[in-house]
Amino acid sequence: MPAPTLALLTDFGPDSLYVAQLKGRLFSGLPDVRLIDLSHAIRPQDVASAARFLLDCVDWYPAETLFLAVVDPGVGTERRLLYARSAGRRFLAPDNGLLAPLFQRRPPDDLRTLDPLRTADGPVSPTFHGRDLLAPAAVKILTGRPLDDFMQPTSAWVELAERAATVRPGRIEGCVLEIDAFGNLISNVDREAFARAATGGDCRVRCGGAEAIGVTDVYGRSPPGSVVALFGSTGRLEMAVVDGSAAERLRVERGAALEVVWQGAGAGG
Amino acid sequence: MPAPTLALLTDFGPDSLYVAQLKGRLFSGLPDVRLIDLSHAIRPQDVASAARFLLDCVDWYPAETLFLAVVDPGVGTERRLLYARSAGRRFLAPDNGLLAPLFQRRPPDDLRTLDPLRTADGPVSPTFHGRDLLAPAAVKILTGRPLDDFMQPTSAWVELAERAATVRPGRIEGCVLEIDAFGNLISNVDREAFARAATGGDCRVRCGGAEAIGVTDVYGRSPPGSVVALFGSTGRLEMAVVDGSAAERLRVERGAALEVVWQGAGAGG
Amino acid sequence: MPAPTLALLTDFGPDSLYVAQLKGRLFSGLPDVRLIDLSHAIRPQDVASAARFLLDCVDWYPAETLFLAVVDPGVGTERRLLYARSAGRRFLAPDNGLLAPLFQRRPPDDLRTLDPLRTADGPVSPTFHGRDLLAPAAVKILTGRPLDDFMQPTSAWVELAERAATVRPGRIEGCVLEIDAFGNLISNVDREAFARAATGGDCRVRCGGAEAIGVTDVYGRSPPGSVVALFGSTGRLEMAVVDGSAAERLRVERGAALEVVWQGAGAGG
Repeated sequence: MPAPTLALLTDFGPDSLYVAQLKGRLFSGLPDVRLIDLSHAIRPQDVASAARFLLDCVDWYPAETLFLAVVDPGVGTERRLLYARSAGRRFLAPDNGLLAPLFQRRPPDDLRTLDPLRTADGPVSPTFHGRDLLAPAAVKILTGRPLDDFMQPTSAWVELAERAATVRPGRIEGCVLEIDAFGNLISNVDREAFARAATGGDCRVRCGGAEAIGVTDVYGRSPPGSVVALFGSTGRLEMAVVDGSAAERLRVERGAALEVVWQGAGAGG
Repeated sequence: MPAPTLALLTDFGPDSLYVAQLKGRLFSGLPDVRLIDLSHAIRPQDVASAARFLLDCVDWYPAETLFLAVVDPGVGTERRLLYARSAGRRFLAPDNGLLAPLFQRRPPDDLRTLDPLRTADGPVSPTFHGRDLLAPAAVKILTGRPLDDFMQPTSAWVELAERAATVRPGRIEGCVLEIDAFGNLISNVDREAFARAATGGDCRVRCGGAEAIGVTDVYGRSPPGSVVALFGSTGRLEMAVVDGSAAERLRVERGAALEVVWQGAGAGG
Repeated sequence: MPAPTLALLTDFGPDSLYVAQLKGRLFSGLPDVRLIDLSHAIRPQDVASAARFLLDCVDWYPAETLFLAVVDPGVGTERRLLYARSAGRRFLAPDNGLLAPLFQRRPPDDLRTLDPLRTADGPVSPTFHGRDLLAPAAVKILTGRPLDDFMQPTSAWVELAERAATVRPGRIEGCVLEIDAFGNLISNVDREAFARAATGGDCRVRCGGAEAIGVTDVYGRSPPGSVVALFGSTGRLEMAVVDGSAAERLRVERGAALEVVWQGAGAGG
């Protein structure tokens, strides 16, 4: 039997002391675990960004992987900590919307809240429940402790407040959610919204004063320096500059407006 | 028996070639090692910062973990390389103060210096003893080579020159040691110093022109934007902004003064 | 038998979603793999930088290590994907020069191109061949699938366009290729070029308006603040400031000119 897989997603900062302490706690309880760092560079307290990251990762990981996701602005307050089983994987996270997009795609088969007193096995810092509650919960789960020993079933969860695109026939008004290492501008426009709005013919994708005509499928087919729009590896519409950085070239930051307009959709943009 | 655990702490830079070479050397000699990156983002040559990071990590790791810590401004000069056993863990590091806070907390059970000629098993670059001396030493230790084969006992070590807080009744004058990914300002004021200075009543914690009244235990209980002081996960007093970054809001950098004053402690601040 | 070793080198960005997806794909197919992150911080699309990184790493890794290197400006176009065996290690990478310096040092024992249709085992995103073609190829290779099932032999590869130093007796005109975490300026002048140009006596190494006289072997032997030149851990001539950052002190960026001049080599510099 292969070692259990435990995947970490936090906003603790790469190479930070908090990650090092968390891993020490996990390794101490799980000598054989296969520990994977998904990312520790989620922007501080950005629950929505972590939720998207997790949603875009989950299906690539083996069945039974346990995802431990900690972006937790409410640490130390009365917000709950959740355990869930969904789509063949397992999850531990604060109940602040982080898991909501997963549940929206497919409701959890099993949903529980942690009982802090039965989960902890040492002092609990009010500022570090990732290390002192979620990590012990992960250890208990992966070493086969009965879930009923430290969790209670629940059926409700906190939804995620997300900035959705406005979609109507011939026009989508969205925004830039993320900028990747290549400077690509990744928007909140997904294929479903795109298909719903499309009125026929090539669309125009506009962001930061630039415009791409139509949607391509590959970065490298247009001349260097061209502004192109395409559905990238995340399934979201993005704007890119061939052999360059769209973020630098267009001086665009996260949150900037991005719109898609089909001809004959009326004035605007 | 689980694989031996080897934890790395360096100032080589995350994702750097130096880390990649070091790991290659270790994996070549230790096919089954469980290798953990604590951090490679220690500020270049900042021995005191690495010493604190290590001190704050060690207790979270399994017994017998070998910590390989390389922040080594004196590489290639006559400074010694140390091996130590302390508190059930093992350590390899330059003798420049990096291990001194650990030894101050608990003297080493076993302390040795590496004999470079017997440790190396290939050419030794004068600029990379981490790869060419400490890594081979780690391989020898974890593969069970007798320590006497390549090390000599010693009883002395170089102390760490640290910037300590000034503590007197009613007043502590400290400074900001680290700024974490959340923008929290982590000071050199620990609980012991705090207790020693406290004269009763709420204190005021001042840094960067802002003031927090009293010490809280949780980030999220005060209104967003509030400046609060608390003892964080490291056990050190820190100043934070609720749902924000204290470093950005107060424009504070590492090294800034931070003071704690109790009422009736006289003028100042 | 130890687990197979798979080492990743990309320009996807540390802690990025692309790396997380790639690893998920690999772990799903390789439950026992020993996965090593060499670096995900190669500058976007900088094939030459990745090629140097790989060249400087390879010899430190165990025999049979499979290196998966993805810096791929041409993703989705008709550029080929290569598999190679060279110097006892194995490689997967786009055919864009990334492996060329390795092959220049020692021609590959085995060189093949991937057949995309036989390599893929699911949909292939035109923007992410690392995840959808190279990762499945790595899984097939490390699980013992016959190479002939999804690759064809080839004998040609794309060479790397590199910025070489100009070497003549008494003078080398080079440039700064990389700046490391310490601020050291690493040039494209290697020992071989240095030996070829040397005309006797101490040389002068000039960069960013500063000059080092002679080449030392250790950072820490000169007074703090001194500008020194030395052959660092990469075997390339570098300029450093003792106990400081040459990049900051000399305000030098990547690409800056660096020259080495021996006395009597005529005017210049």
